[in-house]
Amino acid sequence: MVKEMDRGIITLITDFGTRDGYVGTMKGVILKINPLVRLVDITHEVSPQDIFEAGFILKNSYRYFPDKSIHLVVVDPGVGSKRRAILVEAGNHFFIGPDNGVFSFVYKSERIEKIVELTNKRYFLPYISNTFHGRDIFAPAAAYLSKGTPFEDFGGTCNDVVRFDIPEPETERGIIKGVVLHVDRFGNLISNISEVLFRDLARKGMCEISVGGEVLGDIKSSYSEVKEKQVLALFGSSGYLEIAVRGQNASKKLKMNKGSEIKVIY
Amino acid sequence: MVKEMDRGIITLITDFGTRDGYVGTMKGVILKINPLVRLVDITHEVSPQDIFEAGFILKNSYRYFPDKSIHLVVVDPGVGSKRRAILVEAGNHFFIGPDNGVFSFVYKSERIEKIVELTNKRYFLPYISNTFHGRDIFAPAAAYLSKGTPFEDFGGTCNDVVRFDIPEPETERGIIKGVVLHVDRFGNLISNISEVLFRDLARKGMCEISVGGEVLGDIKSSYSEVKEKQVLALFGSSGYLEIAVRGQNASKKLKMNKGSEIKVIY
Amino acid sequence: MVKEMDRGIITLITDFGTRDGYVGTMKGVILKINPLVRLVDITHEVSPQDIFEAGFILKNSYRYFPDKSIHLVVVDPGVGSKRRAILVEAGNHFFIGPDNGVFSFVYKSERIEKIVELTNKRYFLPYISNTFHGRDIFAPAAAYLSKGTPFEDFGGTCNDVVRFDIPEPETERGIIKGVVLHVDRFGNLISNISEVLFRDLARKGMCEISVGGEVLGDIKSSYSEVKEKQVLALFGSSGYLEIAVRGQNASKKLKMNKGSEIKVIY
Repeated sequence: MVKEMDRGIITLITDFGTRDGYVGTMKGVILKINPLVRLVDITHEVSPQDIFEAGFILKNSYRYFPDKSIHLVVVDPGVGSKRRAILVEAGNHFFIGPDNGVFSFVYKSERIEKIVELTNKRYFLPYISNTFHGRDIFAPAAAYLSKGTPFEDFGGTCNDVVRFDIPEPETERGIIKGVVLHVDRFGNLISNISEVLFRDLARKGMCEISVGGEVLGDIKSSYSEVKEKQVLALFGSSGYLEIAVRGQNASKKLKMNKGSEIKVIY
Repeated sequence: MVKEMDRGIITLITDFGTRDGYVGTMKGVILKINPLVRLVDITHEVSPQDIFEAGFILKNSYRYFPDKSIHLVVVDPGVGSKRRAILVEAGNHFFIGPDNGVFSFVYKSERIEKIVELTNKRYFLPYISNTFHGRDIFAPAAAYLSKGTPFEDFGGTCNDVVRFDIPEPETERGIIKGVVLHVDRFGNLISNISEVLFRDLARKGMCEISVGGEVLGDIKSSYSEVKEKQVLALFGSSGYLEIAVRGQNASKKLKMNKGSEIKVIY
Repeated sequence: MVKEMDRGIITLITDFGTRDGYVGTMKGVILKINPLVRLVDITHEVSPQDIFEAGFILKNSYRYFPDKSIHLVVVDPGVGSKRRAILVEAGNHFFIGPDNGVFSFVYKSERIEKIVELTNKRYFLPYISNTFHGRDIFAPAAAYLSKGTPFEDFGGTCNDVVRFDIPEPETERGIIKGVVLHVDRFGNLISNISEVLFRDLARKGMCEISVGGEVLGDIKSSYSEVKEKQVLALFGSSGYLEIAVRGQNASKKLKMNKGSEIKVIY
């Protein structure tokens, strides 16, 4: 009989690319354990070993999935070393991956319910390689969890997880100084300045934006408010200030990248 | 109880790429509304904002899906502007996307049953961004439709949809002049000259093809009829005349691209 | 009523890329025949027409899928010619694709149970193109097989299948000479020297590795045993000797590629 739980969702974020079959292999491992689980790719194009980028993409997507979804994140430069493998429950979602900071954005915005270290070999593949824990440890853990294996069975509780620094905007009277956290496929520059912070400080909503030597007179509400090839600032779909160029690549045009500064003068 | 309808299919065509998690987020939204629906990626590599390309890829794929499939197409340069969001029923399939012409090929080849503008906010996400209607409007609409929400509930009927021009081949006695509509990943040049038109005009089936300064003596029926690196013309899998180079990239070799002319002299 | 068999798995390996909708179309064909089957992409980024690469990726992934999975491999430079279309049962898995050697690794490592040539047009699409048998012949065959169509219904048995040469390491006293079989997305160089062979010959486990003008003192067991940017040799997740550079692309750094020599002196 099909239990409802078996129909759970596992999402996947990796830096494996889609060329070599690594992701397909992980899916095979999962489906061998739970043939009914739903698999959803978030991305496999994380820049190799870029933990921050993986964390950022996870942050923008996981909340849109049903409660109890399992988010498998394998960006794992320390594979084969002593870094821990963990399973986290937070915000009514589950997260599985290496304990290298990749869940830092989750730790910041959600109440953490439980963290367990994956040590119970019963839920590993029989042979553990030193280079592909995605296949040998993380995928089986996600599959067993999706089948209802109790959290505690996977290993002992741990508290002192690894977190990376998430750059916060600096504010002084009349100025918010932020940085670009992510450049998306369209070349849009996504900053760490949230709409909530801006509305809170700049009560009148009026401002100037200073980016890459250009000064923008205002925050627009959609691309269509400017002409083709014109630079604009707007609050993007993730709720953060973005710099874009209508119909073009802002990162290339403004020669800005991850870490570049964005100043809002209000 | 599982209703048969809940097991429907939603296909996805976007220009979002697969790097940033945008598509995964849309899938999360859909599965939160209908956990049983099947999701099938057609492509997310449409050239940014290329409505024509998206329409062309849709045209070549939708008919192969089961009746009642829902085809979600989000190539949406006008997102956040006044362009409408629509739901179309035609040829026993459903189409959801911006009203920017992306369904022009469908309008041309199918009897349109109904077109509705997506205006009922009950079927939107609670917060609507100005830059990501794929997530906030189109994905929920597709999910609710797959669950059996009646067509009329999404909004009012509309008739005057946007269509782009689909270049038709010009014919004069003994000559068919077509253009390249699409260049695929292999560099094959797919024209707008259909096998049906050719057979109709060139009754004997004999002809010469003039492309990019080369003259080809005949239309072949498979790649294997010519030697490696040789140019050939054949009717491709979509039923249209294609120019290919065996084992090579025809677009690069012949320096031809979308819009390039192909002449058939019969 | 849902039969268990209808819930089977079809994996896909092609060189179609993900830009043009070819793979989506194949999935439409499959779901029209068997709406309940699970579809799993292994890769669609095989280098155009690279049969060896497709075979290598298949070899590393198929065993991780449940028994009775159907592996559809469409890398098919001879499409439209006289090359046969086949269905193979081996190692409790099914394989469908062109008879061009793409299953050579499977033939080498599994007992072949049955091979059938796909000739029964009842299981083709009604119209067969000369360029896209993935859609017209292979996808329907996989779908019908997943629904329980008996093996023998697809066509007659065949024995003399096409195989390509799989380069074997050469061994002489104290030396194993292998070659690079595959370069993955990270630039890791995967050789044909298996851990089993090495352990068998180099009983003490000590050795030197000579690659691309460099000599490595030992085989490591994980990336973390060397410093960033340092070259290392280790047995990778597929059980074969790999050359990697921690945090970098070994193929680029060492200017080595598919076919490059790797020497183990023990």
